[in-house]
Amino acid sequence: MAGQRSQESYIDVSRPSRNPGPDGIIRRSDRTPDTPPGLSRYQQSVLHQGRIERFFLDNIKKYSNDRIKVERGVAPASLEINETEVNDPTAYPLTVELRHLTEEEATAKQHGGGDVSDGLFRSTGEIVHAKYVIGCDGASSWTRRTLGFKLEGESTDFIWGVMDIIPFTVFPDIRERTIIHSAENGSLMVIPRENNIVRLYIQLVEVKPDAAGARADRSSITPKQIFNAAKKIFHPYEINYDWCDWWTAYQVGQRVGTNFDAHGRVFLAGDAVHTHSPKAGQGMNVSMQDCYNLCWKIALVTKGIAQPSILKTYQSERRRVAQDLIDFDHRFSRLFSGRPAKDIMDTEGVSMDDFKESIMTGHLFFQGLSINYGPSNLITKPGDTGKQGDGSEVAQSTNISAELFAKRQALATGLPIGMRFASFKVLNQSDGRPWHFQERLKSDGRFRVVLFAGNILDPAQKTRVDEFCASLDAPNSFLRRTKGELIDSVIEVLTVHSARRHSVELLRDFPEVLHPFDNKFGWSYDRVYTDDISVHEGFDDAYKNYGIDKERGCVVIARPDQIVAWVGELEDFDDLQAYFEGCLVLPESTDGVNGNSP
Amino acid sequence: MAGQRSQESYIDVSRPSRNPGPDGIIRRSDRTPDTPPGLSRYQQSVLHQGRIERFFLDNIKKYSNDRIKVERGVAPASLEINETEVNDPTAYPLTVELRHLTEEEATAKQHGGGDVSDGLFRSTGEIVHAKYVIGCDGASSWTRRTLGFKLEGESTDFIWGVMDIIPFTVFPDIRERTIIHSAENGSLMVIPRENNIVRLYIQLVEVKPDAAGARADRSSITPKQIFNAAKKIFHPYEINYDWCDWWTAYQVGQRVGTNFDAHGRVFLAGDAVHTHSPKAGQGMNVSMQDCYNLCWKIALVTKGIAQPSILKTYQSERRRVAQDLIDFDHRFSRLFSGRPAKDIMDTEGVSMDDFKESIMTGHLFFQGLSINYGPSNLITKPGDTGKQGDGSEVAQSTNISAELFAKRQALATGLPIGMRFASFKVLNQSDGRPWHFQERLKSDGRFRVVLFAGNILDPAQKTRVDEFCASLDAPNSFLRRTKGELIDSVIEVLTVHSARRHSVELLRDFPEVLHPFDNKFGWSYDRVYTDDISVHEGFDDAYKNYGIDKERGCVVIARPDQIVAWVGELEDFDDLQAYFEGCLVLPESTDGVNGNSP
Repeated sequence: MAGQRSQESYIDVSRPSRNPGPDGIIRRSDRTPDTPPGLSRYQQSVLHQGRIERFFLDNIKKYSNDRIKVERGVAPASLEINETEVNDPTAYPLTVELRHLTEEEATAKQHGGGDVSDGLFRSTGEIVHAKYVIGCDGASSWTRRTLGFKLEGESTDFIWGVMDIIPFTVFPDIRERTIIHSAENGSLMVIPRENNIVRLYIQLVEVKPDAAGARADRSSITPKQIFNAAKKIFHPYEINYDWCDWWTAYQVGQRVGTNFDAHGRVFLAGDAVHTHSPKAGQGMNVSMQDCYNLCWKIALVTKGIAQPSILKTYQSERRRVAQDLIDFDHRFSRLFSGRPAKDIMDTEGVSMDDFKESIMTGHLFFQGLSINYGPSNLITKPGDTGKQGDGSEVAQSTNISAELFAKRQALATGLPIGMRFASFKVLNQSDGRPWHFQERLKSDGRFRVVLFAGNILDPAQKTRVDEFCASLDAPNSFLRRTKGELIDSVIEVLTVHSARRHSVELLRDFPEVLHPFDNKFGWSYDRVYTDDISVHEGFDDAYKNYGIDKERGCVVIARPDQIVAWVGELEDFDDLQAYFEGCLVLPESTDGVNGNSP
Repeated sequence: MAGQRSQESYIDVSRPSRNPGPDGIIRRSDRTPDTPPGLSRYQQSVLHQGRIERFFLDNIKKYSNDRIKVERGVAPASLEINETEVNDPTAYPLTVELRHLTEEEATAKQHGGGDVSDGLFRSTGEIVHAKYVIGCDGASSWTRRTLGFKLEGESTDFIWGVMDIIPFTVFPDIRERTIIHSAENGSLMVIPRENNIVRLYIQLVEVKPDAAGARADRSSITPKQIFNAAKKIFHPYEINYDWCDWWTAYQVGQRVGTNFDAHGRVFLAGDAVHTHSPKAGQGMNVSMQDCYNLCWKIALVTKGIAQPSILKTYQSERRRVAQDLIDFDHRFSRLFSGRPAKDIMDTEGVSMDDFKESIMTGHLFFQGLSINYGPSNLITKPGDTGKQGDGSEVAQSTNISAELFAKRQALATGLPIGMRFASFKVLNQSDGRPWHFQERLKSDGRFRVVLFAGNILDPAQKTRVDEFCASLDAPNSFLRRTKGELIDSVIEVLTVHSARRHSVELLRDFPEVLHPFDNKFGWSYDRVYTDDISVHEGFDDAYKNYGIDKERGCVVIARPDQIVAWVGELEDFDDLQAYFEGCLVLPESTDGVNGNSP
């Protein structure tokens, strides 16, 4: 969006006063770290949505060798589902009629968006026969409406304005994420951006919807009105600006879609199935995570590698996340927009302790750490699929008892099944290079079997590892029956042992299935790692942090999206096999048809 | 360069033996860290020269908005210097005749390179009038020969082959940087690269020059011959390959150019003025550092910001580095190519202790930590410019006594004058974001005055800071007399204080010259830092590591290439001013003509 120099300068912007406001009028109730320490090795940062989109566009171009292009100005006109074909993996049961819009039609009206169904179409048409359709078409999703699905939930009465400006102010916390609760004039959030730009979320207490729960008329709201609200909240600190990069106004609404897919063929993602307050910073993030959850599943089913039943888990996993997020946002936005600060001001209003606790819960969402997917044929867990998912039915490959589950989970207490694979540093056995283990769980559509091989210098343990590897390498092993060209095309086996790196050697001490041979590239040197001390970074705590016994180890499955799916002993090979038989397409033994070892 | 599948397969490459060689025949005399801990926050890595070139090409394109292009297939035909004009800054005293070669002419012969002066030119000509010419045209530099300058030094009798292959071997250290000294068959170095490629440097003991010190006939050397030498050194470990990416052979020669510039107008850099063994990994690195040293000087002189006399320091600084490197390489390559291992083998030969010590010295070169530039108008140091430089004369702005120098240097013992500005973490005062301080010393051609402001909560210290800032902000200050458009166009002032971040505020506690106001972007929020504890990374040790008193601080100048140039007290403003008067073009006081504060 093009920036704009303010048409209405409120003050002499050439030289704001350096005179600070009186101390203590705005009381700093607390300071908390921007990212709570210990949650993640990454820190939060604010990136403009346009930059994220640019990363995607650049990488789509790069990884598709310029073959995949994003087309703009294309609108759907109709979607038909041939229900007799939806269970046939070779069929194209979807027919979509597209209209390529003229430039005039495709240009959205400012602060509203053109309704493409208006007016006369001079555009050209196109018919597409598709296996799958994903509707990421926003809160007023055409795809959702065409399928007849609804968003359920409500609007709040809170109206907010947003402005991206370069502020001139002596307010001391202008370059920190700051929340101001004013006594009478509403709340405000400061989010610093690049190039001295600051995003302000400003509650507009003077704008009201016509009736409780109804939609306010946002078309009458001006930047002057929004900024005047901000000035009242900042008072007695002065704030002015000369440059406004962008602005908008919105009414907070919290809604979740009733259905996330139709026939396992048409899927909805993002705002099309969940809308909430933008302040939680979760609009783009949760939407990208929806697609991250969905796309590897569709890819594996389309390639005939995985069973179509796994597609059911998209709704059970992601609708539950959306419900949890909306519940959080419901509480949070009321705390945010409510009257302020009873602990501080000694009056009625929102408790700052409640508010801070709510922000901490929010951080778990922000970091993706609150996700805990329920049982399915992709997650080996006991319990009610409805309670842990969104209530919809999914397949289950193995029924695991609560007792057995607890025993298995105890083998790796730091890797909760259903949650994200935590990352700690390990050393490559062959070259000693330190890696965050998660860097080796690349999002390339492959499952990983992670063999925590324990202390392979102990002869008894070495025997356990050898026996596990013999099962893995046998012709009827799931590993040799996957539909990939190479032994590691669908499932990659990674090893983390706990012996000192210099006390063992890759080729001498590890069976070849753990570092397969390729006729061009030789043995793999990137599969076997050790939990050893680095000369540079001094770790040696991966087993400890994963809660795994350093002598005996265990085996873990990570899904292509890095979610822990299964934990077991080295002796639990049959159950490991059952996991993959429950979600992948595994032909009967074919004597290593896909193997690259003879 | 295009890779090639070996024409001569020495063995059955389809399936090498997994049978390890007998232990103890090649003895592992020691293991050392790839990068010695503590030298740098970066670790060494091996990047193909083509990748480095790609980074440069991509960034030249990006930062010039596609205006600067590297032209290939252009050869110089003549270079004339109009000596009457070399001291006129507005003149173009150089005339270069260029020939744009046909594609056929421009294609270098393999393993040799076409001599562009051979044959009939059907190419087109072009005359360029230039202010400066930089000859980075390699060991047989046309520019150097045209200027009549020489390389001085000698060839050794050691002949080496280099192969980039994907090896098939059970040799256990094939993915680590490894040096093998064999008893009778010479030495070998293993350098792992990407995609399982390994670079082998292989001593060819059977190839001899015709006479001592003469050049060997490299045209007769074949990859088969090189690889057979490698096999003998690896014995009894088998090694084979199917894919050879590239190979070459060379004779080690160590030479330094007699002159690095002509009239301060034509400069030589890289292999044109220093050649040495490629094993030290310094060919590309030292050459890039030459240009890094030279280019900001030329840029500042061309723009009229700096005095032409600073160009003299290119030779005094970089020729001395080349001499030191060649001395090191001379010792190192003899240790490397010499007979092996008397401590290990109990026979005559190279001492492994000497060898290891030499490798450690090498690491200081590799990390750029051995550079210590001598006195000039860019480095305020006492002593003999000849002894600390290369013997050539350079200007000196201030004569500093050894006593005063020692007293000044003691203010910041961790910032030796003449050496690289070490980096430690500090927090941004405005937003608390942690930065490695070196990230704020961007290579954008600007000098930095770093005010270590000490404990500004102490009233006496605050007075010292205020007085320093008053001098800095005065109309006759060097800062207001530089030839830039803004107050920070030529010199940026950065502050690192030692008070707790939350105990001070940017606008209230720091004079504006430390965070200047801009009419579009407001106050600068990226100039003032504090040596405080981070919630995430727990440092708070910058002052300690810089060896600076936390109460009283000091002032430091960093050159545009991050070399420490000057250290002084806050009261030494006149001397600080003298530094810039000695190297920059500073018109008399003009009442803040370049300032962006009123």
